[in-house]
Amino acid sequence: MDNNPLTTDRPDQRPMTNDLFAGIEAGGTKFVVAVGTGPDDLRAETRFPTTTPEETLARTVAFLQEQEQALGPLAAIGAAAFGPLDPDPASPAYGRITTTPKPGWAQTDFVGALRQHFDVPVGFDTDVNGAALGEQRWGAAQGLDTFIYLTIGTGIGGGGLVNGKLMHGLLHPEMGHIRIPHDRQADPFPGTCPFHGDCLEGLASGPAIEARWGQRAETLPSDHPAWELEAHYLALGLATFICTLSPQRIILGGGVMAQAQLFPKIQRGVQTLLNNYVQVPEILQGIDTYIVPPALGNRAGVLGAMALAQQASAH
Amino acid sequence: MDNNPLTTDRPDQRPMTNDLFAGIEAGGTKFVVAVGTGPDDLRAETRFPTTTPEETLARTVAFLQEQEQALGPLAAIGAAAFGPLDPDPASPAYGRITTTPKPGWAQTDFVGALRQHFDVPVGFDTDVNGAALGEQRWGAAQGLDTFIYLTIGTGIGGGGLVNGKLMHGLLHPEMGHIRIPHDRQADPFPGTCPFHGDCLEGLASGPAIEARWGQRAETLPSDHPAWELEAHYLALGLATFICTLSPQRIILGGGVMAQAQLFPKIQRGVQTLLNNYVQVPEILQGIDTYIVPPALGNRAGVLGAMALAQQASAH
Repeated sequence: MDNNPLTTDRPDQRPMTNDLFAGIEAGGTKFVVAVGTGPDDLRAETRFPTTTPEETLARTVAFLQEQEQALGPLAAIGAAAFGPLDPDPASPAYGRITTTPKPGWAQTDFVGALRQHFDVPVGFDTDVNGAALGEQRWGAAQGLDTFIYLTIGTGIGGGGLVNGKLMHGLLHPEMGHIRIPHDRQADPFPGTCPFHGDCLEGLASGPAIEARWGQRAETLPSDHPAWELEAHYLALGLATFICTLSPQRIILGGGVMAQAQLFPKIQRGVQTLLNNYVQVPEILQGIDTYIVPPALGNRAGVLGAMALAQQASAH
Repeated sequence: MDNNPLTTDRPDQRPMTNDLFAGIEAGGTKFVVAVGTGPDDLRAETRFPTTTPEETLARTVAFLQEQEQALGPLAAIGAAAFGPLDPDPASPAYGRITTTPKPGWAQTDFVGALRQHFDVPVGFDTDVNGAALGEQRWGAAQGLDTFIYLTIGTGIGGGGLVNGKLMHGLLHPEMGHIRIPHDRQADPFPGTCPFHGDCLEGLASGPAIEARWGQRAETLPSDHPAWELEAHYLALGLATFICTLSPQRIILGGGVMAQAQLFPKIQRGVQTLLNNYVQVPEILQGIDTYIVPPALGNRAGVLGAMALAQQASAH
């Protein structure tokens, strides 16, 4: 895999200029805001907890204004946010976080709050679409036009590119909420999703692991049976995404995937579930480079937001 | 819904010219071959059973040669075929039906057989991608850039467009082979899929219905419990595709969907499964125009093939 950000012949992946971009990783528990020209040239970064929309967005704006004074004008701003949100510029609700259950945040006009202070292009998308775009530009999906990025953590979310563009359609994917087979004799845990009970997120998110086993996921030893079960559910999800989308690669990030022992289990599980039906070398022989961690690691979020800024400035 | 093929402002959906296109609907049991300028101007059509590749393709070629003599030269040929197949022009196996279990057809060089006799652009894709393209051009998906077309019949297959282009990725989707929850107490039937047992196709294809209930699906009365169960499985599949792809519309064709009573059951089932999580009016209020039959009806296959021809000639 070629991870050199300057080596590319794709017109939409040209090398970074000296333009300054701001990336806002807007998570449900913390915000990370960075300014720079690219992953190897981050000039400033800050992080703070997500409180009320007013306070959190004001802090974001203040930080970016300080950086403009110190470093010069921003060329564009990108925000990769928790959702659901409206990423469609043609929609009346564009730029808002919409129906989130997160207290205080429903219908927050995120882009509007930025536009009050900055007269530059703003990119706005889901955290996972942002991370996917960052991985395509600088990470584990360079040269690919159809792939997905999943985060397995507090929730399970998925995004990606299909035919070279970010996935939107009607709104945006909600990959964590697919239903998967759930053998209640083997695993009587009913699932944690308030909407769907035992959907993929309800069975396999970090909080689901904690609720099922009575201790936080990261405290379970690496040979605990929790991980076989977790890999089984994630493999079921991935097999579904493969049959539905035929992605060229699947990138798995998020806190739960810090458990590196999950990768081989998931890879083998996907092969077993597909049972040689999808006859492509990527799955039959190359699954260890087909299902991979993000190359940008824990910077995938904020760099993804910066990639959204770069994309917005190019439009 | 606007079904007038001449009413469109999309550049890729311009009105047909006088160019003659050939469409080949290559099904596992029959071939349909047609020549014309568009859906309202089919000049010739034939159908014959699918036998050996040699015989069936020779018959296809002979028919097209006759039409060229009678009507003039073809501008392009499109083939929409059963699969799996290789639709990637950059691949060594491009133009082949690849690993099909259909006797004699594995590794058939479909496009090569046409190119031996015709020096025109050839479009080649799955039957469902072809049908999706036809519905976008002339049918139930006009103006949409992200939607799926599913056929529920001898098998279950799915294709579509995402971001305005046909779905390919690694190969092409195999939507019939997703796993869905299967309550074996309510439905002990083990499924018919030789690869996966109780995947969606294994539980809900026409042969699955026949094997479960001991009589052909079309002979079951419309109030038979078979249809509630069928709608439940299809709703599970559709909810998964909605969460994964966020399509702007879902078109359901194929022999099983001739049972019109399935549509309202599936529509209600999808709403129940999503449980107001995806807050868009298309699903919350407009589901009767969101999950729809093909506007091209049983001509979707051959017109889809003709749309592939038209697309190939425009490239």
